[in-house]
Amino acid sequence: MTENKRNSEPIDLSQGFSCPLPITEHDTVQLAHGSGGRMMAELIDKMIVETFKNDILIKMEDQASLSVDSNNIVFTTDSFVVDPIFFPGGNIGELAVNGTVNDICMNGAIPKYISVSFILEEGLSLLEFYEIVKSIKTAADNANVAIVTGDTKVVDKGSCDKIFINTAGIGTLKNKSQISSSNLQPGDRIIVSGTIADHGMAIMTSREGLSFVSKIESDTAALNGLVKLMTDVSANIHAMRDPTRGGVAATLNEFAKQSKMGIKLYSDKIPIKDSVRGACEILGIDPLFVANEGKLVAVVSSEDSDKLLSEMRKNPLGKDAEIIGEVVADHPGVVVKKTLLGVEQIVDLPLGEQLPRIC
Amino acid sequence: MTENKRNSEPIDLSQGFSCPLPITEHDTVQLAHGSGGRMMAELIDKMIVETFKNDILIKMEDQASLSVDSNNIVFTTDSFVVDPIFFPGGNIGELAVNGTVNDICMNGAIPKYISVSFILEEGLSLLEFYEIVKSIKTAADNANVAIVTGDTKVVDKGSCDKIFINTAGIGTLKNKSQISSSNLQPGDRIIVSGTIADHGMAIMTSREGLSFVSKIESDTAALNGLVKLMTDVSANIHAMRDPTRGGVAATLNEFAKQSKMGIKLYSDKIPIKDSVRGACEILGIDPLFVANEGKLVAVVSSEDSDKLLSEMRKNPLGKDAEIIGEVVADHPGVVVKKTLLGVEQIVDLPLGEQLPRIC
Repeated sequence: MTENKRNSEPIDLSQGFSCPLPITEHDTVQLAHGSGGRMMAELIDKMIVETFKNDILIKMEDQASLSVDSNNIVFTTDSFVVDPIFFPGGNIGELAVNGTVNDICMNGAIPKYISVSFILEEGLSLLEFYEIVKSIKTAADNANVAIVTGDTKVVDKGSCDKIFINTAGIGTLKNKSQISSSNLQPGDRIIVSGTIADHGMAIMTSREGLSFVSKIESDTAALNGLVKLMTDVSANIHAMRDPTRGGVAATLNEFAKQSKMGIKLYSDKIPIKDSVRGACEILGIDPLFVANEGKLVAVVSSEDSDKLLSEMRKNPLGKDAEIIGEVVADHPGVVVKKTLLGVEQIVDLPLGEQLPRIC
Repeated sequence: MTENKRNSEPIDLSQGFSCPLPITEHDTVQLAHGSGGRMMAELIDKMIVETFKNDILIKMEDQASLSVDSNNIVFTTDSFVVDPIFFPGGNIGELAVNGTVNDICMNGAIPKYISVSFILEEGLSLLEFYEIVKSIKTAADNANVAIVTGDTKVVDKGSCDKIFINTAGIGTLKNKSQISSSNLQPGDRIIVSGTIADHGMAIMTSREGLSFVSKIESDTAALNGLVKLMTDVSANIHAMRDPTRGGVAATLNEFAKQSKMGIKLYSDKIPIKDSVRGACEILGIDPLFVANEGKLVAVVSSEDSDKLLSEMRKNPLGKDAEIIGEVVADHPGVVVKKTLLGVEQIVDLPLGEQLPRIC
């Protein structure tokens, strides 16, 4: 069986895991899979390139030659170290694709190309690895991006935790984007695209082995479809970001600081699933600080906010969207919320929270 | 003192290491440096963005908006896990920049932008980290590329080995490139830009604690200047690649297989430093299979080969360049060399070699 050094729930390899190499469930990644020899060539050809294949990747050059339809491109990168690598609602592979797709589209760009770079620990199950590779392909197809270049490194056992994945991505912009975290205007409305804290609490409860009545699942999803719909409806989206590490609170604090504006949150409007709220209460965590992986926060002019909200709700990824606050000229750089007692409370950035390896 | 779990030579922190945060040499990376809070913001602002700063990065968006001067771009990525992280002739930071710059320029593209993504182990010395950050900046400046986006993750102690770095890069191409590893023609000459096996043997001897009379240093360098000079001189470069993992042997095998051509090596023409040859002999390693990080292998039409060679030799990074072989129509897909006894021997790809974490 594979080792599950950190996973609280061992992966059941009988659940249809498969692999194109002639291996058994005991077979694992070896150092030689990373050292430039024949074993590496076989792993890359049969497991990775064959799964991801497209006209560009198949050329197997060290760099991908791409055509872009604009002179304005966007570029982003993220490394993923989530623990456990398989969690309720997803795995590290699809998370790595969706995270980078979301970073690209948050300023209105169209995601086109991504790179995928693996760091594998000697001893990782080849079946688990291949499952992740297949998830990456599915996520890329769903997000309509092509995987065009990549890299695979193997480190000795104990030098990484199973698998880390870096994705970088390129998107194109028709015109220079006006969407920027320094662009908030007084009176703007804050919209969140759905329930908050799902991803972070899925990881937390799975890692801690907590079982609640209703299982909490990660919200990992590619948001480029939703963003396209939003930018088609409104030319007055001033800022947009996916609230991952640090949650909605961190995103709004960055917006407030970079725009030198204040933000007032409507606490009772923030969408959250009952199961997630319950888990947060038990663990003593404020859901505003918990990571999301399939949600966005948009800041939009007040005139466009209702129209935008109703359009967003027509999309499955925006069906629970809500207006959760507004931009004010008072208290620049500071986010406040009204408590249930009607007192205004500052929503600050935490010094450092206790949710490592959430993504 | 910092831990040096794997380095055979501990880093001497008295040698001018410094840091913009108010820290001592005992201060290390904490999990909170990666969790989206204030400690993370401070690490990123003061140590990373302040060092790398440019107009694009300083906007601190999740994606960089870039202007490119062509609709043909190239895109590449590499993760770096080299052990030790400081080695004779360089460190993991400059290696990460040079490696990606080299992958971009190998088809004639001009490297423009790179991303830098860190995975840090809890407990890494902040002084060592900052030294690496500064090396990245210096290497990027030397290669004339802008660092425009990035990411920082921290994992718990024992879940990675000090620091892993991923870089992705974007370059532009004036016209579609004709340089491709499937483009070899019979009669073409094989040129290597300088002495082989320096990087791999620098890592090996440093890791094994072997001390030779003359210290072996890594050749890590950005080759885009040399490539620009080469593509200006000859329009008949058919293939080009930097022979990293697997060395010159792996690169030539890939060329031969993808072009369905044979390659004949002139064994006595392959440039190698005496110290490196000596170390290879002692360790029983064939230098053809050892990684280089500042060399390229070019395949060029025979008419252009002498002209190209003499131009290359005018550049410091090409001063030891040699013609080391030719492309033949016989034995497609196979690389051969003549031994000292005059016997032809196949230079095959190794199954998997024993040089993990060379880059």
